[in-house]
Amino acid sequence: MGGGPEVPSKESGKKELVLCTLPWPEEGAKKGVEGLKEEFKDLEVKYFHSVFNNGKMEPLDVPEEYTTRASYLATLFWLPPTAKSLPNTKLIQFFSAGTNHIAQHPIYTDSKIPLCSANGVHGPQIAEWVIMMDLVHSHNLPKLYDLQKEKKWAQKEGMSVSDRVGKRVGILGYGSIGRQVARVAKAMGMDVIAYTASPRKTPESRKDDGYIVPGTGDPDGTFPSAWYSGTSKEDVHEFLKQEIDLLVIAVPLTKATTHFLSTPEFELLHKSNPRGTYVANIARGQVIDQPALVKALHGGLISGAALDVTDPEPLPADDSLWDAPNVLITPHCSGSTDVYADRAFEVLRENIRRQRSGGKLVNEVNRKRGY
Amino acid sequence: MGGGPEVPSKESGKKELVLCTLPWPEEGAKKGVEGLKEEFKDLEVKYFHSVFNNGKMEPLDVPEEYTTRASYLATLFWLPPTAKSLPNTKLIQFFSAGTNHIAQHPIYTDSKIPLCSANGVHGPQIAEWVIMMDLVHSHNLPKLYDLQKEKKWAQKEGMSVSDRVGKRVGILGYGSIGRQVARVAKAMGMDVIAYTASPRKTPESRKDDGYIVPGTGDPDGTFPSAWYSGTSKEDVHEFLKQEIDLLVIAVPLTKATTHFLSTPEFELLHKSNPRGTYVANIARGQVIDQPALVKALHGGLISGAALDVTDPEPLPADDSLWDAPNVLITPHCSGSTDVYADRAFEVLRENIRRQRSGGKLVNEVNRKRGY
Repeated sequence: MGGGPEVPSKESGKKELVLCTLPWPEEGAKKGVEGLKEEFKDLEVKYFHSVFNNGKMEPLDVPEEYTTRASYLATLFWLPPTAKSLPNTKLIQFFSAGTNHIAQHPIYTDSKIPLCSANGVHGPQIAEWVIMMDLVHSHNLPKLYDLQKEKKWAQKEGMSVSDRVGKRVGILGYGSIGRQVARVAKAMGMDVIAYTASPRKTPESRKDDGYIVPGTGDPDGTFPSAWYSGTSKEDVHEFLKQEIDLLVIAVPLTKATTHFLSTPEFELLHKSNPRGTYVANIARGQVIDQPALVKALHGGLISGAALDVTDPEPLPADDSLWDAPNVLITPHCSGSTDVYADRAFEVLRENIRRQRSGGKLVNEVNRKRGY
Repeated sequence: MGGGPEVPSKESGKKELVLCTLPWPEEGAKKGVEGLKEEFKDLEVKYFHSVFNNGKMEPLDVPEEYTTRASYLATLFWLPPTAKSLPNTKLIQFFSAGTNHIAQHPIYTDSKIPLCSANGVHGPQIAEWVIMMDLVHSHNLPKLYDLQKEKKWAQKEGMSVSDRVGKRVGILGYGSIGRQVARVAKAMGMDVIAYTASPRKTPESRKDDGYIVPGTGDPDGTFPSAWYSGTSKEDVHEFLKQEIDLLVIAVPLTKATTHFLSTPEFELLHKSNPRGTYVANIARGQVIDQPALVKALHGGLISGAALDVTDPEPLPADDSLWDAPNVLITPHCSGSTDVYADRAFEVLRENIRRQRSGGKLVNEVNRKRGY
């Protein structure tokens, strides 16, 4: 029989293996694992808790027996050294939205194992974060919350509300997050305009072909009243001139999007909408030129900003951003949700279904493009 | 020609008069007045600023010439002493959601002048308040806001989010506010169940026949997955057993709804949903037995409460509600919006259109029923 690895197959009587190396204790992923076993009776699941400490992954010892057998690998970060350890693997399902963090790994650079992201699982909770912040700002809640602490009933402070009906949300990066912001904003009576890197002129091109949490998002791209596109500053300026009330920054960080928003852009926003644009950033801190943002807040070029990401992170205690006027900062947590694992397992299940039926995988990473 | 009042008419060459006695300086109602004049070139508008001080209306002197001529009266509170002063008035458009505040006035009790409310104009902003509070609670924002003040980046504190997909909102009182909460909640992926005083078994009965801000609400009553009804405690208990994540209290205050929610109801909510129901009250403070609410918050029977109304108002500084756990209190301001006047003028315009075309008025008050 030679000296090669033992290659199990359906014929050998052993079940196919799903190898999980995930950042939750097995108990925390229970629902996802159970769902997997229930749908695919012929699958066996081996679960390893990949522990993170201060953002660093601790070494994880996965017996070769399992890597050799694994038909599917579900992971956030952990990978064996090379694809040789995964001779039977039909796809690797990452539990993160992107795969940048492993883009230098030999399995990414030198193998052909299909890699799929969990893009889409962040849509609902991050969209909620954006909508929440826009409402907190427009309903003057920070002031009312401070007054509650002083046990003061001060009705006048609550009387400067500007409701969202007829306001315009501009979504810079119309992916799964932006699409769910659009759905909720539309329900609140807002107008939605979208910006994408490449033009979306046909109905087909406006569809979302990634994973979508059922009942959410904008699968067919029908919510925006207008679409803008491009990667140059000029292109983005055209978009920023559209009298935007809420600007949602949801673009990936690339060379082109680094400091995409700086003083000229804040000035444009102000000129187009003197009432004041509210800026929400859930992308990466570096998309905004942060000193320019602090100036824009002090100078009243924009009405305020909600930031889940900053440059750098963690934001140092002495950074002037912390107490700039009308800024709300959260510590890069808008993607968190108690159903994160369950939802990512749904993507894995969808991909096992598609792999078995010979369909196109969902969220398959284009290694050249990088996402 | 006799000694009766001069009754102007189209024939006399004078324009019909809209008399406005409203709580904003004329400048603040400019957009509404302009819109009225633009649509109805044959209407003249006379505007009087009805000043309120500490919640009391100051005396307002409106020349008899105008009350006599007024075809339409737009008012919040002010009325002439009797209907005799309004011999030509075809309808009185109140700029408030209800007319309880003038229910003892002779024009209410002894005249037949059609009275219309501005019911519906509060839908968007109060629904936004409800959605905002539910998100602020489920995304742990008060804690994150406090940490920002201390300039602390504490990611763990933002990691206990429970997003809204698949959660259930129970709307006690499915009027214009509840319907707009339903629209937004549905867009966030929530399940909606509705409670009304009278049963809504047919599609026709589920429609909203009041004024609806265009693009908002649930005109056809299609959002709820289930409808409950009744006025007894038993009826309401059936509703509260439905594993509700967000309970929205939006019923009018009546004898039946006074202390509608007390300890037994909080216990039921807890039994049905041990994860914890979040209670939002935008109705009247007295709908909740407030000492029972404070106990329920301390005892963990519910996960928290957002209150725009309290019992009494203003809430005294020494009331134990102020710092009960997981409570957010705002000073009865959720109905405020910078477009309030514009929106109420839209209702008036709609009613002038309908009156002139002989159609059914919108929001006409049934004097017997009281709303």
